[in-house]
Amino acid sequence: MDHKKNINLLKTARGQLDGIIKMIEDERYCVDISKQILAVQALLKKSNLEILNNHMKGCLKEAIREGNGDEKIEEIVMILDKYIK
Amino acid sequence: MDHKKNINLLKTARGQLDGIIKMIEDERYCVDISKQILAVQALLKKSNLEILNNHMKGCLKEAIREGNGDEKIEEIVMILDKYIK
Amino acid sequence: MDHKKNINLLKTARGQLDGIIKMIEDERYCVDISKQILAVQALLKKSNLEILNNHMKGCLKEAIREGNGDEKIEEIVMILDKYIK
Amino acid sequence: MDHKKNINLLKTARGQLDGIIKMIEDERYCVDISKQILAVQALLKKSNLEILNNHMKGCLKEAIREGNGDEKIEEIVMILDKYIK
Repeated sequence: MDHKKNINLLKTARGQLDGIIKMIEDERYCVDISKQILAVQALLKKSNLEILNNHMKGCLKEAIREGNGDEKIEEIVMILDKYIK
Repeated sequence: MDHKKNINLLKTARGQLDGIIKMIEDERYCVDISKQILAVQALLKKSNLEILNNHMKGCLKEAIREGNGDEKIEEIVMILDKYIK
Repeated sequence: MDHKKNINLLKTARGQLDGIIKMIEDERYCVDISKQILAVQALLKKSNLEILNNHMKGCLKEAIREGNGDEKIEEIVMILDKYIK
Repeated sequence: MDHKKNINLLKTARGQLDGIIKMIEDERYCVDISKQILAVQALLKKSNLEILNNHMKGCLKEAIREGNGDEKIEEIVMILDKYIK
């Protein structure tokens, strides 16, 4: 997995959360706060897609070559089920 | 792929759409109509998860065994990107 | 509510479902089928946003003017809760 | 707005992000990391729904009483459009 890329995405998201907490404390306009939360969620989505991509190219591939990929596939589908509305 | 299961899910969704069109024509309460649309989307999600599940256990597995799974993985990640908010 | 626009969106979605059922019967490539289901979901989202928009400009506004908007607001938030991942 | 509740939700999310960064550094199993990111997104969703709920019961109600609610409604629909797949 490309740790550096993912860690940077998550550190950026963390920093933005600090900013949003400040916006709430400063009683900033609700819609602006809501938009900022959406921006953090977009970062988390990006990171999670990166993780799933790497997982499929790593662990899943290996498991399939060793003849037992179904369990890993079920794990991925279970995450998709939670993720997709 | 379990065609029968998926085709039934989609036929149910189609029938529910007919019902929603009638609700709009009958000027039913907006929130009730909105909830019905959500129910159809849940059916479509279920069908799509089934399709992705079968795809990974079929085409993806085969491609990985033949040594060229990355392209198929990119396809799946591209769909997830469109699907996930 | 702009019935015509919504009914057209839903009729288009319905027609696309017919097409997807045919694709499954013809054993078309899973990823192509999955993309088509995503397209139908985009139509349903568009229709549902239209309905919520009209609902807020109609029923919600009226309820707020009559001094009892909170119940209607709870209904909208309940739909958002179901809709948002 | 119930600042305290929202700030607590966001501080919890921030703390969980620290934990996820550590999981990546420790090369923990990808699926477990992915699940943790989903948990943070659920917290952010909860916070954002709270913000939208309060916004509708506060700013939107006031604007509607003053006869210019449409602009505020458009803002909310724009956020829903970004939020909903």
